[in-house]
Amino acid sequence: MTESNKETFMDKKLSRRRMLKMTGAGAAGVAIGASGLGGVLKAFGVPDFLEDDTSVENKVNFYGKHQSGIATEVQTHVYFASLSVLVKSKAELQELFKMWTPMAVSLMNGKPIGETKNSYVPPVDTGEAIGVDAKNLSITFGVGPSLFKNKSLGLSHLKPKELNDLPHFPKDQLEEAYTGGDLCIQACADDPQVAFHAVRNLVRAASGKVSIKWTQAGFNSIPVNKEGKRETPRNLFAFKDGTENPRSEKAMNDVVWVQKGESKPWMTNGSYLVVRRIQMHLETWDRTSLQAQEDTFGRYRHNGAPYGKENEFDAVDEDRKDENGNYVLPETSHVFLARQVKARIMRRAFSYSSGVIDHTGAYDAGLLFISFQKNPQQFTDIQNALGRLDKMNEYITHRGSGVFACFPGIKKGSYIGEALFNA
Amino acid sequence: MTESNKETFMDKKLSRRRMLKMTGAGAAGVAIGASGLGGVLKAFGVPDFLEDDTSVENKVNFYGKHQSGIATEVQTHVYFASLSVLVKSKAELQELFKMWTPMAVSLMNGKPIGETKNSYVPPVDTGEAIGVDAKNLSITFGVGPSLFKNKSLGLSHLKPKELNDLPHFPKDQLEEAYTGGDLCIQACADDPQVAFHAVRNLVRAASGKVSIKWTQAGFNSIPVNKEGKRETPRNLFAFKDGTENPRSEKAMNDVVWVQKGESKPWMTNGSYLVVRRIQMHLETWDRTSLQAQEDTFGRYRHNGAPYGKENEFDAVDEDRKDENGNYVLPETSHVFLARQVKARIMRRAFSYSSGVIDHTGAYDAGLLFISFQKNPQQFTDIQNALGRLDKMNEYITHRGSGVFACFPGIKKGSYIGEALFNA
Repeated sequence: MTESNKETFMDKKLSRRRMLKMTGAGAAGVAIGASGLGGVLKAFGVPDFLEDDTSVENKVNFYGKHQSGIATEVQTHVYFASLSVLVKSKAELQELFKMWTPMAVSLMNGKPIGETKNSYVPPVDTGEAIGVDAKNLSITFGVGPSLFKNKSLGLSHLKPKELNDLPHFPKDQLEEAYTGGDLCIQACADDPQVAFHAVRNLVRAASGKVSIKWTQAGFNSIPVNKEGKRETPRNLFAFKDGTENPRSEKAMNDVVWVQKGESKPWMTNGSYLVVRRIQMHLETWDRTSLQAQEDTFGRYRHNGAPYGKENEFDAVDEDRKDENGNYVLPETSHVFLARQVKARIMRRAFSYSSGVIDHTGAYDAGLLFISFQKNPQQFTDIQNALGRLDKMNEYITHRGSGVFACFPGIKKGSYIGEALFNA
Repeated sequence: MTESNKETFMDKKLSRRRMLKMTGAGAAGVAIGASGLGGVLKAFGVPDFLEDDTSVENKVNFYGKHQSGIATEVQTHVYFASLSVLVKSKAELQELFKMWTPMAVSLMNGKPIGETKNSYVPPVDTGEAIGVDAKNLSITFGVGPSLFKNKSLGLSHLKPKELNDLPHFPKDQLEEAYTGGDLCIQACADDPQVAFHAVRNLVRAASGKVSIKWTQAGFNSIPVNKEGKRETPRNLFAFKDGTENPRSEKAMNDVVWVQKGESKPWMTNGSYLVVRRIQMHLETWDRTSLQAQEDTFGRYRHNGAPYGKENEFDAVDEDRKDENGNYVLPETSHVFLARQVKARIMRRAFSYSSGVIDHTGAYDAGLLFISFQKNPQQFTDIQNALGRLDKMNEYITHRGSGVFACFPGIKKGSYIGEALFNA
């Protein structure tokens, strides 16, 4: 256990009686009512303000122009949570984000959300990440369309017109259990327990104020080449995912970050997150020839190069023909169809594998597709272009969906979502 | 992509027509019938014998006195699969294990199960682990009690008398969807996609011969101390799990490895695996005081030391009393109760987190408890000692269960389970 992660304790020799007197917490083992937990944690160990601890290893910064977890180099694990809001006023919602701010900083510093100074109340931090470093934890907060429809919150006039539930796409089979949400927390880290721990502690501190609607854990296996350089991870169909992502600052501003005047002012420097829980029918895919698999993507499996090219990052050439005058890139391929519209997005996807589906024995596995764009319409345009023609449709089913407006980054001394609450 | 992981391809310039002629596989995209897949893979790329490639980094050896994945230092991920057998004869079952042997070696060498030499049939390997090293993959094979009841296999006389479904324990709420199985494959690796890939490819190659009954992915977050030494991982209750494991060769022989004459001869140097899918009621736990949490385990949370002691590995002292003459270790604690019997086991557990339970919003999270012992009765004795008194019962529910006889290790030139088939 490193010094920074160690819990601090009151002297164990303090008598139980004296301890109870000090805290007024009653008998050991007392269950704190759900709505009272946040207050207890706040009172006993969470500071009001914290800075990024730049001395910590494997650390992503919390403060900045943009939220973490968007341009951040993708980690090996995600725990994505969609939440319902239980608070009844804008002020309470604002308090929630104020409370979460130092907690998120502390978690991203690789520390507990607060110090447990007292054994006779529940621990301030649930503790399963003790002794583990920051693991490049990023935490991204967003708000969904339903939050603005909640009349008691009085936020309807602040809803960006582009923030809406996604339209129904051909072959969607969305399940309520994986769709929508008032808020989202995307916790990414190079350790699944660290990502889970972050969401668990934020939600726990907010008990009575939010409830979980759905969650999904996901992972990425990131190959490292001979030069020690990270390569594009492969999805469960074994194809590289994220090759065409924007990389330059200009491309990020064109594709991902909301610029001044492009959305509601509170979203400037923010981004819109689209999440899709896409089941991959691995059994069907695995009985398909390599040729047909590659025709589906329009790329070669072994190196990710587009059809007719040599290398992963070579430009796609959709007009190229072979010696017989046939197009090299199949017109039903994912790559060909996606290029029929101008829209681009930044993919930041993870695989998931959640056992098997009871009645069939088929893998409940696939892609937790997450993309960021300055307007959800970019995703919709691409998805519509894929439409019914996409050869991929034989192999996947969209089971869950969500769209969230992710706030701009947080300045020191400010808090998550301040621009929304001050608007 | 490293040289060793690169797929080999026939020259892409071979005409489609010539290719089809060579393979007789018909049109590109042809779906191979489920039962034919193993044959296709075998014919096109899987060798009959392979050695451990000791030049590979992060590599666990396949061959040895014992199977891998038991004494192997615990990895960060598991994909555990329970399978039903579809074959109708002992000879077919034997062929299955013979087929799996070089595949398992290849996977543990960080390579595909075979080379894809032909684009017009399904890839020999599903490919999602291309470019990633061996990641300390271990693969452990076992057989369940139901296999010996299958009359067409003719193995009933070889069933060890200690290999039985576990008895019903107080507070068990087992679900059929997570219980039992004819065979198990425990794939552990320091990468979730590598573990999943191993099971997927073994099961795929055996299509028509086995079907999946249930699977569960799990993880461990392994703290590393200032000296770079691995520490005991924490479960989702934040307590260290595995502190009391046997470590010396003598202890392993006393507790884990079946010695000559202790079971059926085919199990000598093997071990029995018990798996329990234990839901942890995190919401209840998280509203419980630290004191009551520690009373539940009989250990301190921050360093894992037993009550009244300083360090994690200090011996438990159940007779120790405080200044008022009260026992230091609560009589309802996990540690106290487990010590009321002589039996010991080796825990090799993982956490799991599989979203939330639809109708409640509670985490579907907990412990994928796996233990190894030379006789499942060791587990049963401990579980019975915990019984109804165990304070832990308030916080957990056992949802799934399995017991499997894991074969001894495999000698070069032999195959998995040979002693059973030659018996």
